Amino acid sequence: MTRAPGGKGLARTAALLLGLMPWVAGAAEGMWTLDNLPRAALKAQHGFEPDAAWLSHVQRAAVRVGGCSGSLVSGQGLVMTNHHCVTRCLAELSTPDRPVKAAGYLARTLQQELTCAGLEVLQLQSERDVTAEVQAATKGLQGQAFQKAEDAVRARLQRECQQGQAATRRCDVTVLYRGGQYVLQQYERYTDVRLVWVPEDAIASFGGDPDNFNFPRWCLDVAMLRVWRNGEPVKTPVHFRVAPQGPQAGEPLFVPGHPGQTQRSLTVAQLERLRERLATQDIPALSESRGLLHLLSQRGEPTRTWALQSMSGTENGLKVLQGQLQALFTPALWEIKRRDEAALRAHVQANAALKARVGDPWVDIERAQQVRREIDQTYGLIAEGRAFAAPHFQYARTLVRAAAERGKPDEQRLREFSESALPGVERRLKAAAPVDLAFERERLEWSLTRMRSLLGPDHPVVKQVLGAQSPAQRARALMEGSRLHEASVRAQLWDGGAAAVQASTDPFIELVRAIEAPSRALRDRFEAEVAAVEREAAQRLAVAQFDRDGRGRYPDATGTLRLSFGVLRGWQEAGALVPTHTTVAGLRARHTGATPFAMPETWLKQGAGVAADIPFNFVTDHDIIGGNSGSPMINSRAEWVGLVFDGNRHSLGGSFFYDGALNRAVSVHPAVILKSLQEVYGGQALAQELTAPAAAP
Amino acid sequence: MTRAPGGKGLARTAALLLGLMPWVAGAAEGMWTLDNLPRAALKAQHGFEPDAAWLSHVQRAAVRVGGCSGSLVSGQGLVMTNHHCVTRCLAELSTPDRPVKAAGYLARTLQQELTCAGLEVLQLQSERDVTAEVQAATKGLQGQAFQKAEDAVRARLQRECQQGQAATRRCDVTVLYRGGQYVLQQYERYTDVRLVWVPEDAIASFGGDPDNFNFPRWCLDVAMLRVWRNGEPVKTPVHFRVAPQGPQAGEPLFVPGHPGQTQRSLTVAQLERLRERLATQDIPALSESRGLLHLLSQRGEPTRTWALQSMSGTENGLKVLQGQLQALFTPALWEIKRRDEAALRAHVQANAALKARVGDPWVDIERAQQVRREIDQTYGLIAEGRAFAAPHFQYARTLVRAAAERGKPDEQRLREFSESALPGVERRLKAAAPVDLAFERERLEWSLTRMRSLLGPDHPVVKQVLGAQSPAQRARALMEGSRLHEASVRAQLWDGGAAAVQASTDPFIELVRAIEAPSRALRDRFEAEVAAVEREAAQRLAVAQFDRDGRGRYPDATGTLRLSFGVLRGWQEAGALVPTHTTVAGLRARHTGATPFAMPETWLKQGAGVAADIPFNFVTDHDIIGGNSGSPMINSRAEWVGLVFDGNRHSLGGSFFYDGALNRAVSVHPAVILKSLQEVYGGQALAQELTAPAAAP
Repeated sequence: MTRAPGGKGLARTAALLLGLMPWVAGAAEGMWTLDNLPRAALKAQHGFEPDAAWLSHVQRAAVRVGGCSGSLVSGQGLVMTNHHCVTRCLAELSTPDRPVKAAGYLARTLQQELTCAGLEVLQLQSERDVTAEVQAATKGLQGQAFQKAEDAVRARLQRECQQGQAATRRCDVTVLYRGGQYVLQQYERYTDVRLVWVPEDAIASFGGDPDNFNFPRWCLDVAMLRVWRNGEPVKTPVHFRVAPQGPQAGEPLFVPGHPGQTQRSLTVAQLERLRERLATQDIPALSESRGLLHLLSQRGEPTRTWALQSMSGTENGLKVLQGQLQALFTPALWEIKRRDEAALRAHVQANAALKARVGDPWVDIERAQQVRREIDQTYGLIAEGRAFAAPHFQYARTLVRAAAERGKPDEQRLREFSESALPGVERRLKAAAPVDLAFERERLEWSLTRMRSLLGPDHPVVKQVLGAQSPAQRARALMEGSRLHEASVRAQLWDGGAAAVQASTDPFIELVRAIEAPSRALRDRFEAEVAAVEREAAQRLAVAQFDRDGRGRYPDATGTLRLSFGVLRGWQEAGALVPTHTTVAGLRARHTGATPFAMPETWLKQGAGVAADIPFNFVTDHDIIGGNSGSPMINSRAEWVGLVFDGNRHSLGGSFFYDGALNRAVSVHPAVILKSLQEVYGGQALAQELTAPAAAP
Repeated sequence: MTRAPGGKGLARTAALLLGLMPWVAGAAEGMWTLDNLPRAALKAQHGFEPDAAWLSHVQRAAVRVGGCSGSLVSGQGLVMTNHHCVTRCLAELSTPDRPVKAAGYLARTLQQELTCAGLEVLQLQSERDVTAEVQAATKGLQGQAFQKAEDAVRARLQRECQQGQAATRRCDVTVLYRGGQYVLQQYERYTDVRLVWVPEDAIASFGGDPDNFNFPRWCLDVAMLRVWRNGEPVKTPVHFRVAPQGPQAGEPLFVPGHPGQTQRSLTVAQLERLRERLATQDIPALSESRGLLHLLSQRGEPTRTWALQSMSGTENGLKVLQGQLQALFTPALWEIKRRDEAALRAHVQANAALKARVGDPWVDIERAQQVRREIDQTYGLIAEGRAFAAPHFQYARTLVRAAAERGKPDEQRLREFSESALPGVERRLKAAAPVDLAFERERLEWSLTRMRSLLGPDHPVVKQVLGAQSPAQRARALMEGSRLHEASVRAQLWDGGAAAVQASTDPFIELVRAIEAPSRALRDRFEAEVAAVEREAAQRLAVAQFDRDGRGRYPDATGTLRLSFGVLRGWQEAGALVPTHTTVAGLRARHTGATPFAMPETWLKQGAGVAADIPFNFVTDHDIIGGNSGSPMINSRAEWVGLVFDGNRHSLGGSFFYDGALNRAVSVHPAVILKSLQEVYGGQALAQELTAPAAAP
């Protein structure tokens, strides 16, 4: 699952990494912004020149779905994304009588479509470069002053853009090139999102964790949703039509999607700190969580379902981080990164005017890494709340902080409580989200235990949190005393404002209040000595970069709309060529009957009629990363020919570099989606909706 | 708990690390062999010159207890070590009616002493340098031939030394300076070891994991055992008498003990590989195990007891490895190691004759690290059996391999089945060791799941092991079908030899047989391309080292008898001086009533009479490491004044370097041992035995 990929494969030669430079003919590298495509190379390689209409169509038909990507695939608001992108919704909708996650779901009428509370779909309407406005506001500032000024101007720009229409509009200022460019994006926001169809978990994630980030694969990792507004499906004349034959050998293929985060432009000092952090903090934490969830998923329902849900994210995250760490232990990566950094430093040194402008951003960034090293652990546990692994804690912190922040002028608030962000915060807080208290208590106890082990029993916050209680006693007291899992209780506290929150004796609210001073102090220090320093220095790095290379580079991924290019392409693994496609025959051969290699009943019965040569999954050399899950793959006629759901294991190093010889994106073929709808799931109507000719625009 | 310490604290200046050089006045660095003490420095610093009688006394009174250290502390075979060194025995002896581990135990008569099956006590009798014989046998050889020749000569030397008296004698060839010196050691072996006294778990490891490797501390981490032979206690006229007043400020203090393993002489390439391995394999595996055990320890008995037992080792190991990894992410360490390596390389380069002799061992070692990198994961899972975390698997492998190896001439066997090693193997195999099948099944399922995730479902061994079953199904089938947890079944198979093993249909035996070929192939490759290369190169490194420095250095720890020096000494932590001692008053102040900060009932009741100012634990600047647990601390009159049980967290970097400003050993004070025997546990007779005047030698 491609939620946040990141390294392997660069055990190969350093020469392969040279592709990290501006667009090189023949390479598929790059997650390009739509206003800065490598047009010359596209034309040279593929004879393709996207015009404004093509780009506008792509921009509107490719959407964001939560932290994933998606696409509009019919004129009636039908949205296609991955099954693994909506598992939280599926778990929340599942009941013993209607086990949506395990058994799949098909709405045969509009009325049967089920609401995915909390899920939103965003469609990019317009973009505006606001670099000059932001940089004017932060000019000459450093540390906390810099950060506060940037927050303030971003809050203002977003608020002005939003024009009080928070229910249907979202505006974000996105930071490209780590500070080199600021872009104000305006999205149409759809908050009434309903589930139309998902197949069973067992076929959506066939092969489970063992096959994740591997290929050959056989995953029907698809989910169909529909956006509604005012009680009816949204009309979406601009959408992608399906090309049932799928991708053709050699034709240019495009992935419009929302890659979440890459770290290709980090300095050597930042990469070193990242490696240390992955090795000493993040991977150990996720590994422990995996052990815990392994046993929790053996318990009775509903704990089992919640544990399996959490396990899937944990195992995916673990593979991603382990792939990143592997890449960061590869000597070739360091050679390239050191060489590139030395070259840019030399360019600055050789140019007095430039040097006067940018100074030595590398040294400033290195200093910030020292602070990271010193406070990362404590910051993560306390300021980010990892020591308190229950949703109650985050609810409580949101309530306590919102009560304090809502009274301040917009420009002075913590950025997540800015006027433009507030409606989203309120909606998530008030959304009814079922929880299993037994599951949450176990995770809370574990996270408290870990906090005590990592910070030591004499740390003032540990003492404040635990007092004379053990983590088990404390977790029990918190969970038994709190009612914050009830949406109505949260709504009451939100609507009651500061007075209601202050009067609350909910133990989580009391806990948050008790540690608010040290938590805020940690955050203030992090923002002043890390975040602001890195951002301000990165602005100067970008100046140096632009001075040398112009805008020929793509920026690191930021969760915003990008376009990747590529073709159907296998790769060499252990001396053999991995073919581009799998088929239904391969699925049947891999079926053992034991999870996660067990086809569901539907496939064993109705599925027997699906022809053995129907293509299932396929690989292409697109440059993708976590967040691209659910992206459509389209051809030059803007028809969808695949549904991206994963990368191969080599793609995990993609966080730091792209290796065209090895990195591959993995997609679901449209034929298996259509065929299974028709033959296996009784979804003829849905298949018809997908294949209906487009209405005139 | 000091079972295998290793990094922190060297966030300090590099200057502190200069102590890694030969004996420097004022530093307590060094785990010295008794034949090569830094006599001049000892005299200059402490005015102390150990004579032959003192050394002989120390050699015989300091013993090995399993993987820990210990000491003879009465004329009647009484052995003192740590509670945490015998927890496996305590768990095995525990029953619902006699919860030895939880409730403690005191034998009021010799008859009440309980046998610790499988535990042995070793007393060093003599040592002989056999370097010339080993090096003659391996001269000019490389790779597998080198390794086989070394194994053969070691097997012969050990067999000849043992003279068929395996029941009471053990002989080991120990490799010092990683190949620079080989020493044949002859031990008296005591296999009838009985439990005399242990306090409750709750006071032995008061503070548990949160306080482990921290100070101030309050652990009564003591166990008293007795060695028996021929149905009576062994007479031990040579032993340490107690000095109840404990250590005095400024006086020289000595720790004779068996530090297990340090890695101070590894090359930069080896340290780099070690860091990668800790980060990508060892720590994630232990972290997962911790999460699993966290929940298993919430189950009912007896699973709970086994899980807690396993958890204590897991959490200790995790802290150790995390401390090591932290040290290996400290820039100062790399500066020192790179500088030292460059200096020795320059010394070789500058000396043609030496260069001709030693060649470039660094390059050979670096090549071996490439192989490690390639096969470590698979080697650990399959060749070392980590994929099969149930004792049954190791029993089965021992049976299958012994059946094959016992038929071969001694010199051609796998080293662990050499004539001299065989009696120990047989004894451990036949020893009745209770297991909880439910616990073992969970761990087996988890380890099989992990193997599949790490190697992938298409790896040939994974396919062989799992077939069409899930890890859960396979683990259940193995555990339900096997009887290898019954000592009598194992004994029958051992005594039946190759025929019996071949005829066995025990599923674990069948599993071992099925993967024996790939397992042996992995081991052969590791020995030929890693172990032999590193050993042979290290011999040449040692030649270069001796050429430059003579024998002024101590060798890396090897689990054999060493002597460390030091004094009572606190240290600066966060700007404040940590005092040297804790007292009973501090224990009472730290008691919360919640595990692991809960004094047991005995201390709440009878313990109320123990004076508040009785010293509890104390710190000294001795250079110790895992394996030193249970070491006596003695004064210059060879009286014991403390019982080493831990290091502070800074000592975890001790695997790679010693920092005298920060590294501290943590010991139990004799006063709290004697006082608690008298006041809390009704052990007046035992206290008398400890304080009885020595009989004339």
